[in-house]
Amino acid sequence: MGARIDIGIDGGGTGCRVALSVAGGPMTETRGGPANIVSDPAGAEAAIRLALTEALAARGLGLDALADARICAGLAGARLPGEADRFAIRLPFLAYVVDDSVTALEGALEGAEGTLASLGTGSFFIRKAGGAVRHIGGWGFRLGDEGSAAWAGRMALSLALQVEDGRLPPDPLAAALVEATPPHPVLWAQEARPGDFAQLVRIVFRHVSSPIAARVQAAVLGALVDGLAEVGHRPGEPLVVTGGLGEMLGPHLPDGLRADLRPPAGRPLDGALRLARALP
Amino acid sequence: MGARIDIGIDGGGTGCRVALSVAGGPMTETRGGPANIVSDPAGAEAAIRLALTEALAARGLGLDALADARICAGLAGARLPGEADRFAIRLPFLAYVVDDSVTALEGALEGAEGTLASLGTGSFFIRKAGGAVRHIGGWGFRLGDEGSAAWAGRMALSLALQVEDGRLPPDPLAAALVEATPPHPVLWAQEARPGDFAQLVRIVFRHVSSPIAARVQAAVLGALVDGLAEVGHRPGEPLVVTGGLGEMLGPHLPDGLRADLRPPAGRPLDGALRLARALP
Repeated sequence: MGARIDIGIDGGGTGCRVALSVAGGPMTETRGGPANIVSDPAGAEAAIRLALTEALAARGLGLDALADARICAGLAGARLPGEADRFAIRLPFLAYVVDDSVTALEGALEGAEGTLASLGTGSFFIRKAGGAVRHIGGWGFRLGDEGSAAWAGRMALSLALQVEDGRLPPDPLAAALVEATPPHPVLWAQEARPGDFAQLVRIVFRHVSSPIAARVQAAVLGALVDGLAEVGHRPGEPLVVTGGLGEMLGPHLPDGLRADLRPPAGRPLDGALRLARALP
Repeated sequence: MGARIDIGIDGGGTGCRVALSVAGGPMTETRGGPANIVSDPAGAEAAIRLALTEALAARGLGLDALADARICAGLAGARLPGEADRFAIRLPFLAYVVDDSVTALEGALEGAEGTLASLGTGSFFIRKAGGAVRHIGGWGFRLGDEGSAAWAGRMALSLALQVEDGRLPPDPLAAALVEATPPHPVLWAQEARPGDFAQLVRIVFRHVSSPIAARVQAAVLGALVDGLAEVGHRPGEPLVVTGGLGEMLGPHLPDGLRADLRPPAGRPLDGALRLARALP
């Protein structure tokens, strides 16, 4: 039996990463293609296997080393009923599969208690307190992801249409959004993916004096404050807000919450490796 | 040159209808397949041609009769920039192509001034006053259609997920909605079309004592009242509220608006024929 091997895996729709450590030593990191276990489990399996094989090879190891490894995978969508188990049995090794929000919390707070709000393309809120973890939101673009960049971009585009039909007065941001969504926002939106809506947020933030931008920013801040209350965050406790939109909005939080803010200690991948190291 | 022929056409994603009248006489009506001019203009053209040919044949007429006909087509999506013209030139005859909200208003009020709110699978608000027509909303499921059945069904399902993650207390409606969207609302919603979300409203209205149902109904009523204000409806003037959800909610309107309610005088198809008859 060789040295102990710990492996963390982080996977989602835009890519996957693998972190490998031998005998508690430094981390080897590799990255691979999209790993959406819900929409493309076979593709996710292949991407993870490839990134894992590369990480092992970088340390002169083969797949046989996995028999002794402790592995934690944080994967987007693993929270949906049955998905984690369904994906785990595809893997040719024993892995502890959790939702990526769990590894994100572990990475951001290095296992300490506190709250993580993630406002990226999607959004979720997760909190560890009294040893228990509570997770709210993060139900995806169509039914949830309140306060996310995709949600904010869609809201901005909806408001631009209210300018178009005269419900709102002309606004430079509305004009820029219509120009960015050819041939017309309604047609553009039919094919747009969450990432496309999220890109519109860049335009929103280039028009800070626009009333529509102010409404969108207020709505995102409201969703962030509501989500923190709903997940149970208490003033004075550690709070990390990550994701592109989260980083932009942290400084705009009300004083009481802003005082709790701290930068994330690590990434979801770091959290996955931490959780692997904690496995028996 | 034969007798004057007037033709009205009503077309949308679920089907099309043609109404034909010779020399101001009784109406011959035919129906045909889906006629979505935005997503499938070739299919819409074929469906309309077929229904039109049948209507002509029923009166012993051939396509050559169209040279003398006055034709108005009210088509969903014709309001989007360029779509009406783009579709009109596909047709082998001269037709006045308008958005179906315009023919719906003409049919519902027989050309009189007043307001029409339509809350079906989608929604729109349109008002004729002082000879001018104002149209708001109706931008489709992804960016608008506030107060529509699809919008209401999606909202109900979002709230059901807030029960699932503990943001809202258990609710019999939430349980029924989760059961109706296998294998899980998030996965179901990824493939669901606006009509699928609209069907969920039937479940909402079967749980009248549910707090979630109360929230959805209040939101739809709020969208209806807001839309009427935004389109400029004034108390004391004619008001028609159509569509499945509109018919359900009419009786729940505040007194001031309920007093203005009247049943629609006719359908969008009747409005299209009326507009054809008014053509020079």
